[in-house]
Amino acid sequence: MEKAFQDYYPDVLSYCYGCGRLNEKGLQIKSFWDGDETVARVLPRPEHIAVPGYVYGGLLASLIDCHGTGTAAATAYRAEGRPMDSSPPLRFLTASLHVDYLKPTPLGVVLEIRGRVKEVKDRKVTVEEWIVAEGEITVKGEVIAVQVPDSLLEKLVS
Amino acid sequence: MEKAFQDYYPDVLSYCYGCGRLNEKGLQIKSFWDGDETVARVLPRPEHIAVPGYVYGGLLASLIDCHGTGTAAATAYRAEGRPMDSSPPLRFLTASLHVDYLKPTPLGVVLEIRGRVKEVKDRKVTVEEWIVAEGEITVKGEVIAVQVPDSLLEKLVS
Repeated sequence: MEKAFQDYYPDVLSYCYGCGRLNEKGLQIKSFWDGDETVARVLPRPEHIAVPGYVYGGLLASLIDCHGTGTAAATAYRAEGRPMDSSPPLRFLTASLHVDYLKPTPLGVVLEIRGRVKEVKDRKVTVEEWIVAEGEITVKGEVIAVQVPDSLLEKLVS
Repeated sequence: MEKAFQDYYPDVLSYCYGCGRLNEKGLQIKSFWDGDETVARVLPRPEHIAVPGYVYGGLLASLIDCHGTGTAAATAYRAEGRPMDSSPPLRFLTASLHVDYLKPTPLGVVLEIRGRVKEVKDRKVTVEEWIVAEGEITVKGEVIAVQVPDSLLEKLVS
């Protein structure tokens, strides 16, 4: 089975509530390449409700956030032409997040979160994203992700 | 004890994962007036981790989101000079959300989410917000909240 971007994160960086594979209570989102775009598929839980029948905005923002940092990391490895389990590890933190809620997102269906890199500049990657529910785009978003400084990353993984 | 904005929401609109008092698994945030600003205090759970020691960005976005729509609703009632438990109910949905992560937000301390209305225009309220942890502003955000159309609200609460 194809490994997701998040499956390559070092253990100590795998506890994120949104995308950490080791966070048992978290969302554990999994992001993959799909050509030049990235994709993650998530079925929100019943408790992720806003008003009856619809997903709450904070969850949608979380999906945009974690899929965005994952896309940024995968892009950085691809740019260096090396696999995601090679050293040194590259990880990204969110500097800013913008989400436009175009229409209510239905609860109870698998959501597809898609991403595309808009700009790479120094250690900063801008990712544009959109969420598709039942064939319709309900949310658009943008994440500016910044590569974690090597010194901080070393401190975390040591 | 002073009631929070969210304590006045009709039952059917009180299941939001972020701010619904009836969502047993949710965050149940409570927002109050503090002069012309609004404030909510939240202690994130241990699982709301990003990297060790810090809160994950999706939760911070959720807090900005729900405190923002709560602030918009409270502002609308205040503008009409009537209490939040009077009819008709006024509720707001998020049209857009912007979050700037200025510095890592520590996990394990109570966060203070503060809001201030920047603009009210027709049925749209823009709320600027910031999150304070241990006396420092770690996050700034902005929510554009739109009043739920009467027809949709009637459908939901009927």
